[in-house]
Amino acid sequence: MGSLHAEDLDTISVCPQNPLDPEEFRRQGHMIIDFLADYYRDVEKYPVRSQVEPGYLKKLLPESAPNNPEPIETILRDVESVIVPGITHWQSPNYYAYFPSSGSVAGFMGEMLSTGFNVVGFNWMSSPAATELESVVMDWLGKMLRLPKPFLFSGNGGGVLQGTTCEAILCTLTAARDKMLNKMGRDAIGKLVVYGSDQTHCALQKAGQIAGINPKNFRPVFTTKENAFGLTAAALKTAIEADVTAGLIPLFICATVGTTSSTAVDPIGPICEVAKEYDMWVHVDAAYAGSACICPEFRHFIDGVEDADSFSLNAHKWFFTTLDCCCLWVKDPSALVKALSTNPEYLKNKATESKQVVDYKDWQIALSRRFRSMKLWMVLRSYGVANLRNFLRSHVKMAKQFEGLLGGDSRFEIVVPRTFAMVCFRLLPKAVAGVANGGTAAGELERVNELNRKFLESMNAEGKVYMTHAVVGGVYMVRFAVGATLTEERHVSFAWNVVQEHAERILGEF
Amino acid sequence: MGSLHAEDLDTISVCPQNPLDPEEFRRQGHMIIDFLADYYRDVEKYPVRSQVEPGYLKKLLPESAPNNPEPIETILRDVESVIVPGITHWQSPNYYAYFPSSGSVAGFMGEMLSTGFNVVGFNWMSSPAATELESVVMDWLGKMLRLPKPFLFSGNGGGVLQGTTCEAILCTLTAARDKMLNKMGRDAIGKLVVYGSDQTHCALQKAGQIAGINPKNFRPVFTTKENAFGLTAAALKTAIEADVTAGLIPLFICATVGTTSSTAVDPIGPICEVAKEYDMWVHVDAAYAGSACICPEFRHFIDGVEDADSFSLNAHKWFFTTLDCCCLWVKDPSALVKALSTNPEYLKNKATESKQVVDYKDWQIALSRRFRSMKLWMVLRSYGVANLRNFLRSHVKMAKQFEGLLGGDSRFEIVVPRTFAMVCFRLLPKAVAGVANGGTAAGELERVNELNRKFLESMNAEGKVYMTHAVVGGVYMVRFAVGATLTEERHVSFAWNVVQEHAERILGEF
Repeated sequence: MGSLHAEDLDTISVCPQNPLDPEEFRRQGHMIIDFLADYYRDVEKYPVRSQVEPGYLKKLLPESAPNNPEPIETILRDVESVIVPGITHWQSPNYYAYFPSSGSVAGFMGEMLSTGFNVVGFNWMSSPAATELESVVMDWLGKMLRLPKPFLFSGNGGGVLQGTTCEAILCTLTAARDKMLNKMGRDAIGKLVVYGSDQTHCALQKAGQIAGINPKNFRPVFTTKENAFGLTAAALKTAIEADVTAGLIPLFICATVGTTSSTAVDPIGPICEVAKEYDMWVHVDAAYAGSACICPEFRHFIDGVEDADSFSLNAHKWFFTTLDCCCLWVKDPSALVKALSTNPEYLKNKATESKQVVDYKDWQIALSRRFRSMKLWMVLRSYGVANLRNFLRSHVKMAKQFEGLLGGDSRFEIVVPRTFAMVCFRLLPKAVAGVANGGTAAGELERVNELNRKFLESMNAEGKVYMTHAVVGGVYMVRFAVGATLTEERHVSFAWNVVQEHAERILGEF
Repeated sequence: MGSLHAEDLDTISVCPQNPLDPEEFRRQGHMIIDFLADYYRDVEKYPVRSQVEPGYLKKLLPESAPNNPEPIETILRDVESVIVPGITHWQSPNYYAYFPSSGSVAGFMGEMLSTGFNVVGFNWMSSPAATELESVVMDWLGKMLRLPKPFLFSGNGGGVLQGTTCEAILCTLTAARDKMLNKMGRDAIGKLVVYGSDQTHCALQKAGQIAGINPKNFRPVFTTKENAFGLTAAALKTAIEADVTAGLIPLFICATVGTTSSTAVDPIGPICEVAKEYDMWVHVDAAYAGSACICPEFRHFIDGVEDADSFSLNAHKWFFTTLDCCCLWVKDPSALVKALSTNPEYLKNKATESKQVVDYKDWQIALSRRFRSMKLWMVLRSYGVANLRNFLRSHVKMAKQFEGLLGGDSRFEIVVPRTFAMVCFRLLPKAVAGVANGGTAAGELERVNELNRKFLESMNAEGKVYMTHAVVGGVYMVRFAVGATLTEERHVSFAWNVVQEHAERILGEF
């Protein structure tokens, strides 16, 4: 440990090389590009799901940071030998787990430029291009989705890039909450109720927790297989009426287009109609499936959005824009601004005072913000609308292909109909098919669930493919989500072989 | 617009080139690296603060996204011609505004690897290395700061990387709030009070707003020049006692080490002592100055942290780790987890159930999270502790150099003593020096403030340097924050020449 005192500052010599030396940047940058290009070329050689045990890394790394510099060559060797084995390869073409995290060349290049400029675009003034490009591309993407004009800047609404849907929901919920409390008085906070379905992403529950909504007033409305696990307007209305009768205040409903468990779609139009009666805020969470809605044949899934208050999708999920990039549009930006703005002296500037500019700091949780629009802009320009539609369609086509293969094999059941690029299926032994389907014997259902747990774990432990699970209506099922950018038809055929092989073995042991 | 229907999927041919084609990645990657290396080499040629007018970009870009792909060469030309003019060059060596956003080669390379792997590390299972590396480097950095053991994983506390301090404060405030409401009942939410000083960053006020704290119960305690705009324990205690008398419940105090306006330091020890009496949560926001505390000679500024509950600093500010990277340590991770966890079926896994692992999704607002530890790890290893200390010291030394130059020129006043690498000064015409100093004539003070407004705008409009302002105790002052990575002593000399030149002109017009 040094013992230098402030007075010794005069004896400090400037370090030998500036940490942002352009030529060192060039040298290392080319090295990392080659490292990553090789990684993408060879990614299939790794087990998709990491095979390490908890605590593996601590054993491989020193207890403390080094006192002296280490060369990039040494660090990269460690990336290869200690980090890569601990990574689950979301970019692998054999990755079908959760939802995709679809990287692309354009998304990566945009992130590099954003990181390279490293501007902090909290308000217009701090880097005008960061704000203005965001407004422009959010209108571009809004038009591609045929969002109604009131969601676009050109229609007095507007879009903003958040990190994730969790943030988007928290911001809109906070806006809705304050709008309501301004009417009802602050003391009403304990009476506010937030609605979703029992399929809604946990982001809603968490946003409610953070925003100070009483956890008892988080209302996940029951869905059923009959309605393909979509929220019905009738069930919502029943839940709301019960709350109103109990003296509570309906505040916010989150409708989902493409739920996490099964890509179910809540009917936006009918939900908005119910919400309207109670002056509730409607947010549409299209985190996963929103991207597909740039294709005319999928657009109908967001019909009714004209009556919603806000709409979001994750471009980092299925729109080739590396993590993180959640696109949020609102009809009434002033509701966000009222709830989220602060106006400290040290950020005051003429542009803000002119009211001619957007200051995105007031549309989000954080003050600081990265130049995320750069990557979305590059994705839109590098691929163009026509290709983007076709990329998404190719994923849907591959999912359909996989669904067809399952459908032709009586050992499998498609648990819910495929809507986008995810197939939900399970192994269903003939002996119990009738019983499990009818759901009359809980014990049998649990046996089949356990069989499928083993089936999935067997595949994932082998590491040739990676899928994850969900449970809907008590049924444990395997989710096969196509969307990793490198996935091609041959990978789906390969996955089908893996599925058959493990099915055979597991059924043999049943 | 296409009119393709879902049934036509079979006719879709796969797109000509995969959007993550490794060789295309390599080709474009090398191009962008050279683009950015040249940018750093030439960044001094641009005006530091962007000179564009509101709305400039909309006029230069098309109304809609292109239908067909555009080559990277075209896009990069547009980056150069339409984006760069709209950027304020935070990486310029002549940038002294706000606080630095200190990029570095290692920080950039870490961000590239993180973006390249593009894993979504919400829980351990989803990419073990992302979680484990974060825990390791947070212990490393904690040790460098000599944080007491209860903040480290090795002492049953732990660290987590958030995007920004705003998020760090919101998470800890939510944890504190729920802990208190579990004791007092949910209805007490309207009585909870959040404290800071009138110098505390606006992040606290915003976090309070989002967490459902009544805005009337946000208590910015008055500071004075006599205490160098630090929060005194006595003033805090007075404020708390008034609230308790009024039936309110003191909840949370945010102490700052290095305020935004003037890098003031709130005395952590005495503040913790007061907080203890009322069972309040103490968060230490060392967003800017925390980095310097890795140097033994600055460590005393966080003395007393052993009695705080949480501590955060922004590595993206003054620690060479590109935006965004806020380091948060807490003594009681379970308080965060209780407030922020959700446990949906689709994320259940054996590792979580074993309780052997950290699932960082429960330590933050969002579910999804980037692999941020990669860049912090690369910064720590590429430079080493000794060099990192010296880099920070070289910035402090340059600020001291600038302070010395100002001190030798009677036209300037150092408004508050320099503590770290920021100098707060103003032009002070001889004729009004006495009056303005004494603060007896408000009109005179306002005249001097106006003079300094003009002085600052004159420099920034010219674009050779960029500084911003703050107001403390009614005094408008210019903030000169050294910390842009490329800044060297010659740039500070250059800035001094610019300052003198504009001072002369503005005083001549006074």
